[in-house]
Amino acid sequence: MNAPSVFGRYRPEIDRELAAVLAERQLSLYDMMRYHLGWIDDKGNPRQNHSGKALRPTLCLLACQAVSGEYEKALPAAAAVELVHNYSLIHDDIQDDDRERRHSPTVWSVWGKPQAINAGTAMRILASLALSRLKVAPQKQQLSQSLLDISTLILIEGQYLDISFENRFDITVDDYLDMIDRKTAALISCSLELGALLGTDDKGMIVGFRDIGRNLGLAFQIKDDLLGIWGDEKKTGKPLASDIRRKKKTLPVIYGLENPDNGLKHALMKIYGNGTVGEDGIRTILSLLESHDVPLKAQKMAEQYCNKATEGIERLALSPKAKQDLYEIALFLAERSF
Amino acid sequence: MNAPSVFGRYRPEIDRELAAVLAERQLSLYDMMRYHLGWIDDKGNPRQNHSGKALRPTLCLLACQAVSGEYEKALPAAAAVELVHNYSLIHDDIQDDDRERRHSPTVWSVWGKPQAINAGTAMRILASLALSRLKVAPQKQQLSQSLLDISTLILIEGQYLDISFENRFDITVDDYLDMIDRKTAALISCSLELGALLGTDDKGMIVGFRDIGRNLGLAFQIKDDLLGIWGDEKKTGKPLASDIRRKKKTLPVIYGLENPDNGLKHALMKIYGNGTVGEDGIRTILSLLESHDVPLKAQKMAEQYCNKATEGIERLALSPKAKQDLYEIALFLAERSF
Repeated sequence: MNAPSVFGRYRPEIDRELAAVLAERQLSLYDMMRYHLGWIDDKGNPRQNHSGKALRPTLCLLACQAVSGEYEKALPAAAAVELVHNYSLIHDDIQDDDRERRHSPTVWSVWGKPQAINAGTAMRILASLALSRLKVAPQKQQLSQSLLDISTLILIEGQYLDISFENRFDITVDDYLDMIDRKTAALISCSLELGALLGTDDKGMIVGFRDIGRNLGLAFQIKDDLLGIWGDEKKTGKPLASDIRRKKKTLPVIYGLENPDNGLKHALMKIYGNGTVGEDGIRTILSLLESHDVPLKAQKMAEQYCNKATEGIERLALSPKAKQDLYEIALFLAERSF
Repeated sequence: MNAPSVFGRYRPEIDRELAAVLAERQLSLYDMMRYHLGWIDDKGNPRQNHSGKALRPTLCLLACQAVSGEYEKALPAAAAVELVHNYSLIHDDIQDDDRERRHSPTVWSVWGKPQAINAGTAMRILASLALSRLKVAPQKQQLSQSLLDISTLILIEGQYLDISFENRFDITVDDYLDMIDRKTAALISCSLELGALLGTDDKGMIVGFRDIGRNLGLAFQIKDDLLGIWGDEKKTGKPLASDIRRKKKTLPVIYGLENPDNGLKHALMKIYGNGTVGEDGIRTILSLLESHDVPLKAQKMAEQYCNKATEGIERLALSPKAKQDLYEIALFLAERSF
């Protein structure tokens, strides 16, 4: 399934807004950010933009357009949520010791961890400064800033929980859902809520978008976990079973851990408990997960949250065009192969 | 020289405000912050508060009181600058690989670097949320938030420059001053400016406090560098010549590097260029620096900036009592032994 065309619609303006936020930041500190965003290579030469789908800014602008008919006033917020997302990736790569992202060396593997910590935190501050470019009443400005701050705090709580799972084998699906609700859904929800907030004063509408975002975020992360194990390397940029190699406690593995009677937990504890996960271990885990229909169960769960999001979209008083755009994104997030 | 009593004046209220910001944050992520702030030990038991002087919040409250007669309305800002300072210490300890601070293990050496990165960044977000507790007009709220964000960004630029100095031997005193202007003076200046901004609309007064803060910040850091080499271990909590052991490029060392004809540069490059700095190397560097009057020159420099700050205080239309408090702090920062 290809990405719906809506991901391209606002792309040039999102990039222009991000460029404006970073303009005239001369210190080479900011080159680490430009590198991470795919604008330059590690020598400072311009390169083809290889950054991601810009899911969060697209959702932000869509929400604003859906409630007010125009998206332009939400551009600073769109840049802000993209910067929050990317700051979290820079820190995440340090924390997970990941040397590659999107086929390129990660920021820390080029500049070292101490400077990558600086690049990440500074990028998070730039997100707040991006938001100060909004042209709205001071009170709405303040609401937006608080929403971005609280969502970032929740995102960090999720990241904290995710790391704290690493040495535990007693995690339940509920623990997992609580973790991804914070790590992933909070910022996706914030993106839609911010867009709506900037376009309307209708509380019901704003809360509606917040809830849609939460469900989309959960569906997105569950699908991400599936792709982290069964994704096609050519499309995802990650080797088969990459999350198993890295001993991640993603949803399929937690399914296995939660059911002590099916042999999965025993095998997982044995294989994850040893040093490196070898090819044999990976094959064993994959075949156990598959024989217990775990991929199917996880896919169903992603679709459930996608359906909840769709129902939320249905309930809102929006134009058919706006609904169509949102449906397409919801469907894509649950069905995508990259 | 003892710390002037003004450092104790607002302390209980600063601590109460900080406690309010952290109240009801249940996740153990926040225990890392409470530990860093000296409120609990690494098992979660309450402990005697062993945190620092609270220089920045004290300056913030002093400025507000000096311009408006009351300090209470600046309490959220005082908490915010203290949180920014402490976030930067948590990250700094990770970046410098420092295992101890104030006679206790650093956050990362208890919880590991990945979680300490989370604790630091989350604390920086809490600083913004602390500021949202201000009870001022939305426009002033917005100005305060931007000031805190820009000052944090400049602080990170300074931290970036400081780390980038590690492998260079061509740093001049001007480079150094530019670095500490960002790493240290920006937040001290922000503390005074925020306090003034919250107490008055008088632009000249606000800019006056900003400039005083900058000079105080420079004096503070230069003195800190002196104490990092010649400080009394019992008072500073750091061993003699601690910054030389850690091969830091602080002001005394940069004085040495900037003067190629005095033998200092040659000796420093040789000793810093090797793996660990041994006791012989430390003795050689200390005696070279001392025989070239470097401690005296650096102390004079600290006093120069302290004098500039004092002149700035003199020029402002403040009560004699307010001026006296500020003079005492300025003098203490340049003359302190801890």
